[in-house]
Amino acid sequence: MDTNSFRGEDEAALDDVTRGMTAQRERILGASYRLFYRRPVHLVRGEGAYLWDADGTKYLDVYNNVASVGHAHPRVIEAVTRQMSALNTHTRYLHTRVLDYAEDLLSLLPEQIDQVMFMCTGSEANDLAIRVARAYTGGQGIIITSESYHGNTELTSAHSPALGGNQLPDPASRRIAPPDGYRQGIAATELAAWYAAEMQRTIDAMRADGVAFAGLLADSAFSSDGVFLGEPGMLRAGIDVVHTNGGVFIADEVQPGFARTGDTFWGFARHGVIPDIVTMGKPMGNGIPISGMAARREVLEAFSRQIPYFNTFGGNPVSVAAAQAVLDIIREEKLQDRARIVGAQLREGLSDLAQRHELIGDVRGAGQFTGLELVLDRETKKPAGKIALQVIEELRNRGVLTSVAGPHANVLKLRPTLAFASSDIDWLVGALDESLLAVQP
Amino acid sequence: MDTNSFRGEDEAALDDVTRGMTAQRERILGASYRLFYRRPVHLVRGEGAYLWDADGTKYLDVYNNVASVGHAHPRVIEAVTRQMSALNTHTRYLHTRVLDYAEDLLSLLPEQIDQVMFMCTGSEANDLAIRVARAYTGGQGIIITSESYHGNTELTSAHSPALGGNQLPDPASRRIAPPDGYRQGIAATELAAWYAAEMQRTIDAMRADGVAFAGLLADSAFSSDGVFLGEPGMLRAGIDVVHTNGGVFIADEVQPGFARTGDTFWGFARHGVIPDIVTMGKPMGNGIPISGMAARREVLEAFSRQIPYFNTFGGNPVSVAAAQAVLDIIREEKLQDRARIVGAQLREGLSDLAQRHELIGDVRGAGQFTGLELVLDRETKKPAGKIALQVIEELRNRGVLTSVAGPHANVLKLRPTLAFASSDIDWLVGALDESLLAVQP
Repeated sequence: MDTNSFRGEDEAALDDVTRGMTAQRERILGASYRLFYRRPVHLVRGEGAYLWDADGTKYLDVYNNVASVGHAHPRVIEAVTRQMSALNTHTRYLHTRVLDYAEDLLSLLPEQIDQVMFMCTGSEANDLAIRVARAYTGGQGIIITSESYHGNTELTSAHSPALGGNQLPDPASRRIAPPDGYRQGIAATELAAWYAAEMQRTIDAMRADGVAFAGLLADSAFSSDGVFLGEPGMLRAGIDVVHTNGGVFIADEVQPGFARTGDTFWGFARHGVIPDIVTMGKPMGNGIPISGMAARREVLEAFSRQIPYFNTFGGNPVSVAAAQAVLDIIREEKLQDRARIVGAQLREGLSDLAQRHELIGDVRGAGQFTGLELVLDRETKKPAGKIALQVIEELRNRGVLTSVAGPHANVLKLRPTLAFASSDIDWLVGALDESLLAVQP
Repeated sequence: MDTNSFRGEDEAALDDVTRGMTAQRERILGASYRLFYRRPVHLVRGEGAYLWDADGTKYLDVYNNVASVGHAHPRVIEAVTRQMSALNTHTRYLHTRVLDYAEDLLSLLPEQIDQVMFMCTGSEANDLAIRVARAYTGGQGIIITSESYHGNTELTSAHSPALGGNQLPDPASRRIAPPDGYRQGIAATELAAWYAAEMQRTIDAMRADGVAFAGLLADSAFSSDGVFLGEPGMLRAGIDVVHTNGGVFIADEVQPGFARTGDTFWGFARHGVIPDIVTMGKPMGNGIPISGMAARREVLEAFSRQIPYFNTFGGNPVSVAAAQAVLDIIREEKLQDRARIVGAQLREGLSDLAQRHELIGDVRGAGQFTGLELVLDRETKKPAGKIALQVIEELRNRGVLTSVAGPHANVLKLRPTLAFASSDIDWLVGALDESLLAVQP
């Protein structure tokens, strides 16, 4: 399947400077590195919802959930600079920052989730979460969704079908379809029951293979699966099935967490469910590497008793200063409210657009997380994957940066920074309008 | 075995503020978190080679290889602040910083090592390195040293015997003894041949078990094994054996890299060997999370062709700005020369001390990495593990922060920042003198 990435064959069309940089990357960074776009973007500056390239061209960032409170937010910069000037060290010495932040973070989580550990990346958080879940339940079997991505370590890669067929799956993992009401043709009112039945069926099949069930690892926004935020409450019956069968629910909040979905601070909270383990990453420090894993004390204990765990950079006061600033900014700038309001306005604009563009099969999402599914035919829902990639390139040429998701790569993932405002909608919707016209099949 | 850590039983002796913080950690950070010292240190400020606690007490940091060029180095702070103010994003867009840094870093490595990838932690670098080695060789078997520590992910933990018996080893890993000339009673001139023979024996035993050899993953300073820098060239014959048998050598430079050993910029280079993969971490960004894995293009290719790898924060311009500042500082402040000269002076002072303290069994090291092995009897070399822990506490009470290493936890690991100067030696040696007197058995 084609993806949004630069390939050697695109090289001839580049200007000299860009071609020099892509060749240099190929030479010294190697084949694992991928660039977005057939005409890669050379960025030099960011501010709020915007980015600028080396030629001074301004872009609207509709894909970045790392610089979540906005690029180069002065408050994050100040917090990091101030803490760096005082001290940066690890958690084997006492420091108030990590404690104050842990209290603040836990106060935003359900009261059952009462302990938190810090790492540097979402991959590290999920790697640990899987081990914690296994130690607690005594089972090995983890259920993941069909196109999920949970990280780049060996263990998390083996739980990331999105990496493709060459990545061997964990022998004890099993896949469940995402709650894709659109493509499966299931009404919102029926979806929760359907998902719960799928969950039980998957657990039963796992057990029939002789694998003891440990739990479900899922991103409640189903980002890589194609962005399925669903109606509030959609996941509740499914998570009940996980618990009834003795498993734990690991909520991977790397994508939906930190106010993105607007209705609630965490993605799982929209569904009124209580996870046993919560992992977090990307938006947590607005780009300064920090991640976390929060859990019920009882769930953590089995692992902690058996295995020492220390993460050198995890919870260092500088990364925590960035993370604290992010929480403060979300509250003071009311970014959760803004995500809810602006996201709804955006989807309204996109729905209007859908009336003029047959290519748009579905507009869905919550807060600042929108999936725009492109299809060749609204009846058959045949995925317009190739066209979606063309749209991405057309958008890039109109200064709008985003990318695609889902098994057919036909879902535009519109996931701007939380600094994205109502006044940015016209640029995005206008560019989409033009791009969809430009790629008419 | 006892380790340098705070335990509940020590709580009664603490002042109210410290006890409040330890209780809060226990409550919200959980049982995996460990504090150094029976009387934990509450740090608030750092500068160069020094740290200060909340009461204003000054400490000499003899254990920190993260803030390697010195605590709160103004140049690192400036580089980070400046880059944060401009832009922080991932490597799917073009940015000159990551390319400039990669070129600089590769110029410090043997010319055969021609590609580099960036992650956030040493654990991530070693996790990837093991997978790269396996993909390249087609073997699964990795040889590690008996007490090595290579990371906290599932895969690296399974290659970290230092984590203790509850951590299941990787089924394909095998252990080799470190080149401990002191305890094994092998002369420096014989040690290289002994180590090479051990290597062949271990590879043969692995093959006899039906495991195909993939390579050796080793820290050339053997830090967790008890600090065995050895004579330059000591590892050469052993690494030759690895290569002759079709394996790769993964040099874990998290501890010895970035000028620490004084003679050379990398630990492996002291031995005149050329690794196939080099992993790096802790000192790379002076505390800002960044790590790397460099390798021969040919070695990387097998993995890169099969599996996509992307690390969201890896190689972000802010972390790279810190890493670039670290390289610049090491060169401009001539910290490698300083490590060589000051380290030799320190070991001279410690050798003098050994004439007055029977407890000191061995003084060894290179550059700013010194192992001071304590024994109850110089003839039998019976390890003075319990006493070493008392010495650590006595040193802490005299403002000198360090810890222990090795299977018997009887080796003081003296690994100061590279800002440690000749003028700091008196404090360290004097405090050691007093501490050794205080703990006389």
